[in-house]
Amino acid sequence: MAQQTSAHNQHLTLADIARQTNYSISTVSKVLNDQSDISPEAKERVNAVLTASGYRRKSRQHRHQEFIDIVFSSFSNLWAFEVVKGALNTASQHDIRITITESGDRNHPAENWASDLVRRHPLGAVLVFSHLSTREREELDKNDIFYSIFDPSGEPEPQDFSVRADNWNGGMLAARHLADLGHQRIAMITGPEVMLSARARTEGFIAALADRNISFNPALKREGDFTMVSGLREGLELLNLPAQERPTAIFAGNDLQAMGVYEAARQVGLRIPQDLSVVGFDDLQTSSFMNPPLTTISQPLQQMAGIATQMVINRANHEHSDMHVVLPTSLIERESTARPQN
Amino acid sequence: MAQQTSAHNQHLTLADIARQTNYSISTVSKVLNDQSDISPEAKERVNAVLTASGYRRKSRQHRHQEFIDIVFSSFSNLWAFEVVKGALNTASQHDIRITITESGDRNHPAENWASDLVRRHPLGAVLVFSHLSTREREELDKNDIFYSIFDPSGEPEPQDFSVRADNWNGGMLAARHLADLGHQRIAMITGPEVMLSARARTEGFIAALADRNISFNPALKREGDFTMVSGLREGLELLNLPAQERPTAIFAGNDLQAMGVYEAARQVGLRIPQDLSVVGFDDLQTSSFMNPPLTTISQPLQQMAGIATQMVINRANHEHSDMHVVLPTSLIERESTARPQN
Repeated sequence: MAQQTSAHNQHLTLADIARQTNYSISTVSKVLNDQSDISPEAKERVNAVLTASGYRRKSRQHRHQEFIDIVFSSFSNLWAFEVVKGALNTASQHDIRITITESGDRNHPAENWASDLVRRHPLGAVLVFSHLSTREREELDKNDIFYSIFDPSGEPEPQDFSVRADNWNGGMLAARHLADLGHQRIAMITGPEVMLSARARTEGFIAALADRNISFNPALKREGDFTMVSGLREGLELLNLPAQERPTAIFAGNDLQAMGVYEAARQVGLRIPQDLSVVGFDDLQTSSFMNPPLTTISQPLQQMAGIATQMVINRANHEHSDMHVVLPTSLIERESTARPQN
Repeated sequence: MAQQTSAHNQHLTLADIARQTNYSISTVSKVLNDQSDISPEAKERVNAVLTASGYRRKSRQHRHQEFIDIVFSSFSNLWAFEVVKGALNTASQHDIRITITESGDRNHPAENWASDLVRRHPLGAVLVFSHLSTREREELDKNDIFYSIFDPSGEPEPQDFSVRADNWNGGMLAARHLADLGHQRIAMITGPEVMLSARARTEGFIAALADRNISFNPALKREGDFTMVSGLREGLELLNLPAQERPTAIFAGNDLQAMGVYEAARQVGLRIPQDLSVVGFDDLQTSSFMNPPLTTISQPLQQMAGIATQMVINRANHEHSDMHVVLPTSLIERESTARPQN
C-alpha cells in the first residue's frame, strides 16, 4: 500500500514539483513515499522544493497506515503465537506492520493501555481481551483508532467488530464424541468462568451430555485458567479420586490444559487412552505431536486472527467489513480417546 | 520516553508558542507529543500557531525512537515465540515497540528485506538469521539502522553485534549425560548443516563422546531441519534399524525434533526412557510437559533475545554495549533418559 502524502494549506501538486525539479511525477512520488530506489540527487532536489514551499508531509496519516497493534493482556504461550502468526500473514499482504503490546494480566489490560495506544497511533488494533469500558471505547473512537476484538471474553457490544469460534458447538462436539465412545463418568476442566469462550464450551458440553441422557456430576467440573499448570493441578485432583468415582474421560477445556492432564495421568500411572480419554480444544501446532496425539476441537486461530486484522484494515479504508464473525469448530480425532475399559 | 520535537529552519521555542496561545509550556509540549489528556481547543490553537509558523515536527526522529523490528526468515514455531517474548520484555521497559517481520524462508531472508527495513526506519533491528551480505550490511549502516544478530547461523563478522548460546558446550553436556548413563549406541539428529549453531552442537557432542572413548557411528547421524516433522522422519529411520544396530539413545538436536522422536518411538512401540533415551536442546515451555518430561539442554532464549534488543537500544543511545555475548547452556535432567536395558 503506497503511503499517502498530500499538501497541507498549499496547493502544490506532484506535477508542480515534477515541473520545478525536472523529475518525473513517478520519481517525485517515490521520494514522497521514502522509497529507496531513487538517486540521492533526486531526493535532494525534490526535498529542496518541498522545504521551500512549506510542503508538509502528512506524517500522522503516514503513521496511521504503518502498523496494527495486537494488544494482549497476556502474551505467554503457543496460543498467542498462533494469533500473531495469523495477523502477520494478513497484514503483510497489505504491507502493514504488526506490533505487539502486552499490557496487564490475563483478563484485564493495564489501566492506561487505551491512552498508550492513542499516543502511538496505529492504523488500528486487534484487542485480545475484552471488557472494554465505555471510556476506553470512546477514547479509541475519538482518535480514529479502528479496532476489532479477538475472541471476546465478554458479550461484545453491538457496535464492536469481533471474531470468535463457535465455542458452544465445540463443547457439544467434545461431549458427543465421548458419549459415542460409551463414557459415562466424564469430567471437564473449564477455562476461567469470567471468559465467555470458556463458559460457552462448558455449557455446550453439558447440554450435549444431557441430550444423551448423561447427567453431568458437578463434582467432576473444575475450573482452570487455560494453562498447562492448571491442567496438571486440576487433572491430579480428578485422577486421585477413588477408582469408582474417577472419570474415565476428561474434556480439558483447551490443549494446554490437556498437556497438564497428560502429565497428571503419567504421574498417577494411568495410560491414555486405555485408562483415560482426553479431549482438548484449539488444535495447537504441537497437539498432533503429543504422546499420544491429542483428540481435540479445532478452532482456526490463525484464520480468526487474519479476519480480525482484515476488519481493521477494511474499516480504516472505509470498506465494507462484517461485524461479528463466528467460525466453525470441528472434532479432530486422534489417539487420546477410546472406549472406556470395563 | 517522550517523543522529540524540534523546530526546523525556524527558531520557534515552546515558550514562543505558549506566549502566542496563552497556554502553559507543559500544555504545548503535550500537544506536540500527541498526548491525549488535553482539550481539543488547546490542540487546535497550538496547531494553528504551528501551521502559521511553518513548524515541522521531527517525525522521522520520532519514528526512529518508536520500534525495533525483529526480522525472522521464518516465524513458525514456539522457538520464535520465546524470542519475541524476550524482546518484548526488554523493549517495553524502554517504551519501545516491537514489530515482527517474516521474510523469506528458514535460512535466507527475501532479497529486499534490507531496503524494506530502511523504508520503515525502525530504531534498529534484531536479525534472527545471518548470512548478511556486505551490501545489506552497508545499507543498514548507511541508514543508521542499528542491528544485532540473534543466534548467528554463520560466523559473525567482527563488527557485528551478536548473541548466542554456547551450543558446542551444550552438545558436550548431552553426550556426557548419555555416556554417564552407559549408552554406547548413540544417535544424533542434527539441525541444518548450514547453521553454525547446529554444527557446534554436533561437534561438541561428537568430541565429548570421543573423550569417553565412544566412537560415534556416522550412520547414526541424520540431518533434520529443526522441526517436529523432521524429528519424526529421521527418528523413524533410526528406530526402524535392526535391533542390534538401533540406537539406545538419541540426541535430538532441539526440542521440536525431540517431539518428533517421541512420536516415532510411539509409532514403533518403543517406550521412553525404558527402550530409548532422548535428549533435546532449547528447553521450550512445553518440554517439561512432554510425556515423559524431556531431558534437555537449556539455552536461555528469552534472555538472549532481551540482550540482543538491549544491544540495539544501547547502540542507538550511543551507550556502551558488549559486542559478542555467549550465554551458557545447561543440562536439565527430567525423565526421558535412563540407563540402557541389556
